Amino acid sequence: MEEQNGDREKRRPGLVAGRTVADTGERPLIDLITRRLTLSPEVVLGVGDDAAVLRSPPGLLLFTTDMLVEGIHFRVGYGTAEQLGYKALAVSVSDIAAMGGMPWAAVVSLALPGSMPAAFVTSLYQGLDRAARQFQVSVVGGDTVASPGPLVINVALTGKAVEGAVVTRQGARPGDLVFVTGSLGAAAAGLYVLENPGPWPAEASRFVQRRFLDPVPQLEAGNLLAAGGASALDDNSDGLAQEMHEICRASSVGCLIEVERLPVETPVREIAAVAGRSVWEWALHGGEDYGLVACVPPARAGLEEVCRSAGIALTAVGRIAAREEGLYVVWPDGRRAPLLPGGFEHFPPAGGCNGGTA
Amino acid sequence: MEEQNGDREKRRPGLVAGRTVADTGERPLIDLITRRLTLSPEVVLGVGDDAAVLRSPPGLLLFTTDMLVEGIHFRVGYGTAEQLGYKALAVSVSDIAAMGGMPWAAVVSLALPGSMPAAFVTSLYQGLDRAARQFQVSVVGGDTVASPGPLVINVALTGKAVEGAVVTRQGARPGDLVFVTGSLGAAAAGLYVLENPGPWPAEASRFVQRRFLDPVPQLEAGNLLAAGGASALDDNSDGLAQEMHEICRASSVGCLIEVERLPVETPVREIAAVAGRSVWEWALHGGEDYGLVACVPPARAGLEEVCRSAGIALTAVGRIAAREEGLYVVWPDGRRAPLLPGGFEHFPPAGGCNGGTA
Repeated sequence: MEEQNGDREKRRPGLVAGRTVADTGERPLIDLITRRLTLSPEVVLGVGDDAAVLRSPPGLLLFTTDMLVEGIHFRVGYGTAEQLGYKALAVSVSDIAAMGGMPWAAVVSLALPGSMPAAFVTSLYQGLDRAARQFQVSVVGGDTVASPGPLVINVALTGKAVEGAVVTRQGARPGDLVFVTGSLGAAAAGLYVLENPGPWPAEASRFVQRRFLDPVPQLEAGNLLAAGGASALDDNSDGLAQEMHEICRASSVGCLIEVERLPVETPVREIAAVAGRSVWEWALHGGEDYGLVACVPPARAGLEEVCRSAGIALTAVGRIAAREEGLYVVWPDGRRAPLLPGGFEHFPPAGGCNGGTA
Repeated sequence: MEEQNGDREKRRPGLVAGRTVADTGERPLIDLITRRLTLSPEVVLGVGDDAAVLRSPPGLLLFTTDMLVEGIHFRVGYGTAEQLGYKALAVSVSDIAAMGGMPWAAVVSLALPGSMPAAFVTSLYQGLDRAARQFQVSVVGGDTVASPGPLVINVALTGKAVEGAVVTRQGARPGDLVFVTGSLGAAAAGLYVLENPGPWPAEASRFVQRRFLDPVPQLEAGNLLAAGGASALDDNSDGLAQEMHEICRASSVGCLIEVERLPVETPVREIAAVAGRSVWEWALHGGEDYGLVACVPPARAGLEEVCRSAGIALTAVGRIAAREEGLYVVWPDGRRAPLLPGGFEHFPPAGGCNGGTA
């Protein structure tokens, strides 16, 4: 871990308009970006030494890492630096939500091109800090290094969980209902709008872009679903189809997804119509919505009502089947077809399926 | 966190000579690299879900992150992929050693150019696994993504520590002795040999290259120094001079380093002589040796003997002074001069000092 503290009174360089990362310098930059961070009382020592020191929580510790690479996961200019910082932490929070846990402490590594404006980096950290406050994450350390190429952001996040309340991908059983939270396909539509010239219907375009740029991890839903007896839980970062493949593989089951039931919002339909694209493709393979996929035993179906009264939209989109039945979709016209995996896969094998959303 | 499990019996693709990352595919590649990993009993769920699940350790948790970027921290071809994987974990273990803790669980993010041979990645993971076994680290998760440019490796590592036994950079007091473990400057000499055409004396050249490519974190030394009453502890990854600046800043003290006392091994002197470089510059500013710098109150000076009997070479190289006295070196000719910070700093500010070693 890079040293990130500093005698801040002496070394406050201020942020001069137009300065780059290279001419601001590593340590003044680190002082700038870490000045605002807030920490929970469990943090004994945050940013500034070889490692952070925390009081170990009771129960279980969750641990996840996510790397975002410029040109692969995002492009500078699609959204603001602040949105990018927010999303970098939010996607890791989504992983913790998908286990039924609560996020806790994070360390952040940044590889920065020297020509990048220092103001971009401070904005990025403001977004990270916004997510940290919203989800009560303590950012306790980091590493800030030079990049000869793309901007790279890595967030490693720990979470807390109660013994017995963690939900993996392994517990789905034939007969379980498959639910999704929120709606599907909006982030994929947002990325499509960002990557393709319009004109796009203005309001719908803003709506879907925002869904891609500002995903909201489903922390409360994850906790409710875990406490309420979900048998398997996953976030849909790689798209519903891909995540169903993960769940079915981990649980040794099959599934049937009814396409007509997939919750898709009006702006997504509007964009799909203008783009001449299938809204169902986005809903099944799009990914990046950062909602949850939950398998729920029939005996626990009351969970739907519990979620609804907590303001969480839960939609039944299919059911778990025996492994031998395979993974299927029923299209709106009644046609039954295999559920192809596909979703965003890095380095798809030659001839492999790649829904390609991000 | 990317999905990293897999029905390995069904999906064992084997490693075909000459295949790249891109034509192996993400999931088969992940299956290949995670097949060997070993986990401690505290790991409830390792690689393969949204997040790993661990039994939270008693006491304190340490947390650090290190990002290595191709072209900045390493070049492919300087060492083997196996050495690179080993070093990627070793540098984080060094951070935990410098706190007086024991490493515990790690998550590893890789951004891989699609054209990279898959065999390079599996070798990299073999090195990572070698370090994990040596230092008893459980690799519990990761994220494997595409890179449009350099290879990027991020290791986030947690560690365990006992309340009261953690040593930060903040406790140094005037009068404390300054010790270093091992020797200094060998990694800098190794990098110099790698970056500059020879001819170099063969044996010395091998020795110093190995020190740069295969650093050994000082875990046992860190634990002994912490338990034995060191007042401040740091690893020397950025060079002794830079680390003394960190310690003095954090502890609000000054220091005096006697250059003549710096432990430098014969091969380093041989390389410096051939290169026409100052061996003291390497020893003071070189960095990457991954030894420890420890401040020890005079009353605890017996610690030196304790370490020696455990086979750990400890050398007194100076003493902590009052803040007003500043940071100084005494050169072998008796000249006293300010101790410049310098060491490897990313994006050095214009006009700043940069010893530039890695």
